[in-house]
Amino acid sequence: MHAVVIRDGRLHWEERDDPVPGDTELLVEVKAAGLNGADLVQRAGHYPAPPGWPTDIPGMEMAGEVVAVGRGVTLFGPGDRVMAVVGGGAQATMAFVDESHALAVPASLPWPEAGGFPEVFSTAYDALFTQAGLASGERVLVSGAAGGVGTAGVQLAAVTGAHVVATVRQPDRRAEVAALGANEVVAPGDEAAHGPYDVVLELVGAPSLTAALPAVATGARLVVIGVGGGSRIDLDLFSLMGKRARIGGSTLRARSRREKANVAAGVARHVLPLLASGRLRVPVCATFPLAEAEAAYARFTEGAKLGKVVLVA
Amino acid sequence: MHAVVIRDGRLHWEERDDPVPGDTELLVEVKAAGLNGADLVQRAGHYPAPPGWPTDIPGMEMAGEVVAVGRGVTLFGPGDRVMAVVGGGAQATMAFVDESHALAVPASLPWPEAGGFPEVFSTAYDALFTQAGLASGERVLVSGAAGGVGTAGVQLAAVTGAHVVATVRQPDRRAEVAALGANEVVAPGDEAAHGPYDVVLELVGAPSLTAALPAVATGARLVVIGVGGGSRIDLDLFSLMGKRARIGGSTLRARSRREKANVAAGVARHVLPLLASGRLRVPVCATFPLAEAEAAYARFTEGAKLGKVVLVA
Repeated sequence: MHAVVIRDGRLHWEERDDPVPGDTELLVEVKAAGLNGADLVQRAGHYPAPPGWPTDIPGMEMAGEVVAVGRGVTLFGPGDRVMAVVGGGAQATMAFVDESHALAVPASLPWPEAGGFPEVFSTAYDALFTQAGLASGERVLVSGAAGGVGTAGVQLAAVTGAHVVATVRQPDRRAEVAALGANEVVAPGDEAAHGPYDVVLELVGAPSLTAALPAVATGARLVVIGVGGGSRIDLDLFSLMGKRARIGGSTLRARSRREKANVAAGVARHVLPLLASGRLRVPVCATFPLAEAEAAYARFTEGAKLGKVVLVA
Repeated sequence: MHAVVIRDGRLHWEERDDPVPGDTELLVEVKAAGLNGADLVQRAGHYPAPPGWPTDIPGMEMAGEVVAVGRGVTLFGPGDRVMAVVGGGAQATMAFVDESHALAVPASLPWPEAGGFPEVFSTAYDALFTQAGLASGERVLVSGAAGGVGTAGVQLAAVTGAHVVATVRQPDRRAEVAALGANEVVAPGDEAAHGPYDVVLELVGAPSLTAALPAVATGARLVVIGVGGGSRIDLDLFSLMGKRARIGGSTLRARSRREKANVAAGVARHVLPLLASGRLRVPVCATFPLAEAEAAYARFTEGAKLGKVVLVA
């Protein structure tokens, strides 16, 4: 196979041995693999893959066709279209994934959208529902809503019957975010005037969270997923006590195999049907051939985009 | 009736009109009323009673005998022994309480213990179970365990099958806290070495919470109830994300009537049976006559006590 390889902080396109699937794993011919902010952090040397995954091949999500399965696999077989969050190694022509982490790709879904679906929708689903317990009728703030997790979070919250307020920095992205189901799209810094918020999906970090805190409702749940804008906040615990609010944080990548299987099961049950029926969509802003990963990463870094940058085979 | 009255930051013993119970309220002849840290804050002018409660008569918990009931009351009648968290006015010879907030006093329980039970056990119960979801087999840290909420929290966590680590500042209080069921009693500052903690019941505040944070387990729930030691922390959101941990805070007093009824129902169901059977106890360090509230507050302020200071009729 060929793979994107990180060496000396740069990306190379190199030949490697095909992975051999373990007993419960699928070997997948990759058709599309989305980029995520964490890929850039890994390229810079700060976010190593967890144990058991390729150390130098990036890529935390992919979609493709099953070409071989381990002897204990029961859920999928050769020829099946699957997509998954993986611990690494997705940006290659072949990749492996535990069958409990794989999701069936809806028949109608093009490969680039399938390749950009797993990471951001799993992250947003887990944060909004498993961690924050979002339910219909509540008011949710999605901070930094034009990115991958943001566009997923806005849609998931909207289809669940929540009132969605989204912050989007670039004015020319706001109409697109509104079209995804956000009831109000505002500039960062204006969010406090549009509260109160029962749930906050924080994708920017410290300054944004600090701006949202005065506007949370009693019993609010804030979940921090992204801290690109800074990670340290000066927090007055009184503000949490008076509102009976809580702040949590999360990453998917560090979780155990079993925990990741639980997330995938939740997404399969509660999100895939909406993707298959067209009520949810995966905005893709650009695709690049796998061999041109460096250009794709550069595009991702530019920002000013709605949705995913996806590598395609 | 006679009541403790706050005026100019001091406590006076004065005659007042008896309260008239509303439709769903009980009029109670107070036998005992526990002191809480918030009483001192209220005396200093910083923690006004919520709407509908006496503005100048302190006291957030009491036990006594029902002497009259509103026309809509169905659960209690004259002569019943009750105890309750109230929004204020408990430190008087007569007080009122909504019947949905009242708990039956177990037959075996002396009045001083009944008067010191509601606030701290309701607070600890709500924080540990409703908010933090503590369950058997987990490891819990109770920071500042020798006080009222601490002694309640240590006992509740221990009877639930958790492993309890307690911090206690005064060395001569540690054996008493261990006798309440703490598996390990350590000095503040040493808690990080005794983790990891699935749940943290934070009763001291910022410095203590900061010391505990590096020792929390994956999926930890931290609940801040007391901030006497400081309320502002410098929080690195990365530390929450990596551990998938969350920090919440809470107070009982500001809650709605319905929310308080829910807390009382939980305490009645899950805590009262253990109090009646003797598996939980209310440590009382000192009692003072109601008319000597100033001396009682002074004793409370001194610290170096295990359990409650209670005013008695």
